[in-house]
Amino acid sequence: METFFSFLERRVDDCSSLLCVGLDPHVSMLPEASAEAALEFSLGIVQETSAYAAAFKPNAAFFEFFGAKGWDALSELIAAIKAESQRMGSMIPIILDAKRGDIASTAAAYAKSAFDHLGADCITLNPYLGKDSIEPFINVPEKGAFLLCKTSNPGASDLQDMLVLNDEERGKMKDDDALLPLSSFQPLYIQVAKNAQRWNLNNNIGLVVGATQPEALANVRAAAPDLWFLSPGVGAQGGDLATALKAGLRADGKGMLINVSRSIAKAESPKRAAAELRDEILQVKSQLGL
Amino acid sequence: METFFSFLERRVDDCSSLLCVGLDPHVSMLPEASAEAALEFSLGIVQETSAYAAAFKPNAAFFEFFGAKGWDALSELIAAIKAESQRMGSMIPIILDAKRGDIASTAAAYAKSAFDHLGADCITLNPYLGKDSIEPFINVPEKGAFLLCKTSNPGASDLQDMLVLNDEERGKMKDDDALLPLSSFQPLYIQVAKNAQRWNLNNNIGLVVGATQPEALANVRAAAPDLWFLSPGVGAQGGDLATALKAGLRADGKGMLINVSRSIAKAESPKRAAAELRDEILQVKSQLGL
Repeated sequence: METFFSFLERRVDDCSSLLCVGLDPHVSMLPEASAEAALEFSLGIVQETSAYAAAFKPNAAFFEFFGAKGWDALSELIAAIKAESQRMGSMIPIILDAKRGDIASTAAAYAKSAFDHLGADCITLNPYLGKDSIEPFINVPEKGAFLLCKTSNPGASDLQDMLVLNDEERGKMKDDDALLPLSSFQPLYIQVAKNAQRWNLNNNIGLVVGATQPEALANVRAAAPDLWFLSPGVGAQGGDLATALKAGLRADGKGMLINVSRSIAKAESPKRAAAELRDEILQVKSQLGL
Repeated sequence: METFFSFLERRVDDCSSLLCVGLDPHVSMLPEASAEAALEFSLGIVQETSAYAAAFKPNAAFFEFFGAKGWDALSELIAAIKAESQRMGSMIPIILDAKRGDIASTAAAYAKSAFDHLGADCITLNPYLGKDSIEPFINVPEKGAFLLCKTSNPGASDLQDMLVLNDEERGKMKDDDALLPLSSFQPLYIQVAKNAQRWNLNNNIGLVVGATQPEALANVRAAAPDLWFLSPGVGAQGGDLATALKAGLRADGKGMLINVSRSIAKAESPKRAAAELRDEILQVKSQLGL
């Protein structure tokens, strides 16, 4: 059965790369504040890096910023990535970074917008509203979703690190006088990882886990041994590539997309920067015997 | 100091109403699947209900569904609400239901899109990424945000009801052998409510709390005595109006926007449906002596 992750893994094999190239046309990076400039900026990065990209990740916010014109630019960008993929003879998955999350009928409208209208293959989602808010995005196996699990921003700890009662222990809490040891708890982000692993019946759910906290990466890998991670934070945000890969790679040497945006976009040669990152990842994998 | 909630309270006084009219042009409600039809549908509801609406809440998903044209329609709708407000001589706050949530620089782009470009006064946000993901939306007091706290969908319990360790108790957990009683825990949504109450320094943070679960409403009111709630779930989703108001109103008889979308849109006369709901709310308030 073709699924989003069988599609991604084919591309990973084709380009020997675990690099996800983020397309973040922040207005400060553009020569002028226009949707056309955002599109041109993004197309330039696609052209330079397509040989090394296991996936592209356009960020909806920086297109939405330009209103209707930005929306057209995003649509044109996705079509251009597909055309470039066809030219190369290897389709590159497109992950729409939109971090959506809404109740069912509204979620269905977002899913239709992202997958059918824009033509993205995958989307980032927020898990706070629970399983029924995720379902409209994952009921077609060829389309996928990465759920926010442990993000790389400073405020991530506000909720994600809170200690919650294990599912199993919760059932035992009938007695109000019961006392529970520390081992009954786990961080909220681990519960999200366990939910995702359980919900992944179509091989199309992954997790967003920042590369800046290797310990958290290792914990999420233990809780969700099968899932793909989308890991931002290497480069501009200070995450160390080798440490992150060691903590997060699956035993098959896959299971992790290293997302890089700014340090590729700002490089003198984005092409060379992407090639070097691809090779660095290969080198770490070989050191790990993967 | 003018803040989002002083603006809302002025409108609430002007129209003696706590009704928030949701503008959800779901494609199934439209005579044809087009952005023009979505706009016309929404404008019709605005015209019919403007006298009774304390706020309007367009849902971004149902416009995004139509791509760039939908985005233009949303922009036109917001401009039309402002024009209608001016005609009436009482500005009606516009809450963009977008449920965004992203790291800081991306959140800033979403804030600019919603407030500066579209012209919304307030937005719904997802709290999973923590305080720094909220800040770009609340640093201007005149603009506001409702944080998702306890939603009305079935999957809400997956994460929102999980029991987390109180902030205070957490500090005491230095000893790994410590045993904790049930009273050390609270549902995650209560933690979100407490965070919001603490972060509300500019009188511009509220909470989304479904009207379908009166007990949860009462718990959130206890945890966040000052905050405004945006409460969907009355009508189509089965929440009882009087029960919800009793559980959620503040002592000053304000603090709660009752959001209704489908049952107004589907009524033979949306105008009469809105007027009746406004009056029902007034009646309950008077029964409660508020």
